[in-house]
Amino acid sequence: MEDLKNRLRQFANDRNWDQFHSPKNLAMALSGEAGELLEIFQWLKEDETIASNISPKNLERVKEELADIFIYLIRIADKLDVDLVREANIKIEKNSEKYPVDLSRGNAIKYNRRND
Amino acid sequence: MEDLKNRLRQFANDRNWDQFHSPKNLAMALSGEAGELLEIFQWLKEDETIASNISPKNLERVKEELADIFIYLIRIADKLDVDLVREANIKIEKNSEKYPVDLSRGNAIKYNRRND
Amino acid sequence: MEDLKNRLRQFANDRNWDQFHSPKNLAMALSGEAGELLEIFQWLKEDETIASNISPKNLERVKEELADIFIYLIRIADKLDVDLVREANIKIEKNSEKYPVDLSRGNAIKYNRRND
Amino acid sequence: MEDLKNRLRQFANDRNWDQFHSPKNLAMALSGEAGELLEIFQWLKEDETIASNISPKNLERVKEELADIFIYLIRIADKLDVDLVREANIKIEKNSEKYPVDLSRGNAIKYNRRND
Repeated sequence: MEDLKNRLRQFANDRNWDQFHSPKNLAMALSGEAGELLEIFQWLKEDETIASNISPKNLERVKEELADIFIYLIRIADKLDVDLVREANIKIEKNSEKYPVDLSRGNAIKYNRRND
Repeated sequence: MEDLKNRLRQFANDRNWDQFHSPKNLAMALSGEAGELLEIFQWLKEDETIASNISPKNLERVKEELADIFIYLIRIADKLDVDLVREANIKIEKNSEKYPVDLSRGNAIKYNRRND
Repeated sequence: MEDLKNRLRQFANDRNWDQFHSPKNLAMALSGEAGELLEIFQWLKEDETIASNISPKNLERVKEELADIFIYLIRIADKLDVDLVREANIKIEKNSEKYPVDLSRGNAIKYNRRND
Repeated sequence: MEDLKNRLRQFANDRNWDQFHSPKNLAMALSGEAGELLEIFQWLKEDETIASNISPKNLERVKEELADIFIYLIRIADKLDVDLVREANIKIEKNSEKYPVDLSRGNAIKYNRRND
């Protein structure tokens, strides 16, 4: 990831695109790519999106969207000096406390308060 | 990232949440988190979102949203057996050809075909 | 809708919030609300989101998100002097030509080029 | 809007697409279109997106995305029997109480708790 960060920094600098890369704009770009990912899956049943069932063509498209999201994620983190791996680990710790194993088993809905 | 992938896999397994983690659902969750990132930035001027100007409180919120996005990104990639670093590098190669340095300098708009 | 447009215009003017309501910012706000809608549905099965199955609490939340999306949609349209009903009708005409009834029956996937 | 609702219902029925139009899927489609709207604006400055400055080509693209968002919004509302105009009016009432005029003037940031 360190290498990717530097390549992307170089890429933007070479093209003088750094001027466009405010965190605000990059967040929009990331969200736009997330929207493209949704468009691949939106009319498919859940089952049609899992590894054993997804079509090779859609998998290629998914890979490209995941790459785009990852690229913008690394760019925002770089611009705001955020260590993504560190923050993800902190978040997992928090979630471990928020959703204790014994209370959460099989109950994603309740514990994510998605339904009640 | 390999370590994160495994922690997240364990986390979902421990809670029997794997059943909810279809790529379709995870893409929705990622997009929801991207939406929360937008909400932090939406009324701020671009300049107010850069590292030297963002408020400490907003930076904390941004870190948490970036972590959430990263977590769901790693989960989708894991479920579809996608190597994010590899795909990002492939995408950077493609973009280097699509936006040659000499034609693209300072011209993000034209080369992203965002405006004409 | 004309009445809603005027109420929203008044609302923003009364608070001097018009300065924040650039189409760029409003698009971010709309997308943020769309993300909140996703969050309600993300761990539910398709079947759990239909009218006869959705929980009263989730339906209330959905109503609120739909209202928020509608509000921002009307605001952007107002700021850019777009007639939403007219544009939607134009779009339906286009889609009628793009997806002829006899070729499209039951085949959302192919005709939306979502899968192949 | 009543007319639009009926046209869209007919459109889906004629093509046997109703089977794909669960609220969950429609929410994804709406969010995908919101993402396309973001993509039009993402590298533009706020000022470049206002009515007097936006390029005719971008305005055309915006109209199409707004139409798509509106169409999916009406579809979800129809599927869940939600009256969008009514819900928007209720939401404006709530917001009027939440953000009283005298406390909110010019202070979108604080009252939206976007920054502190």
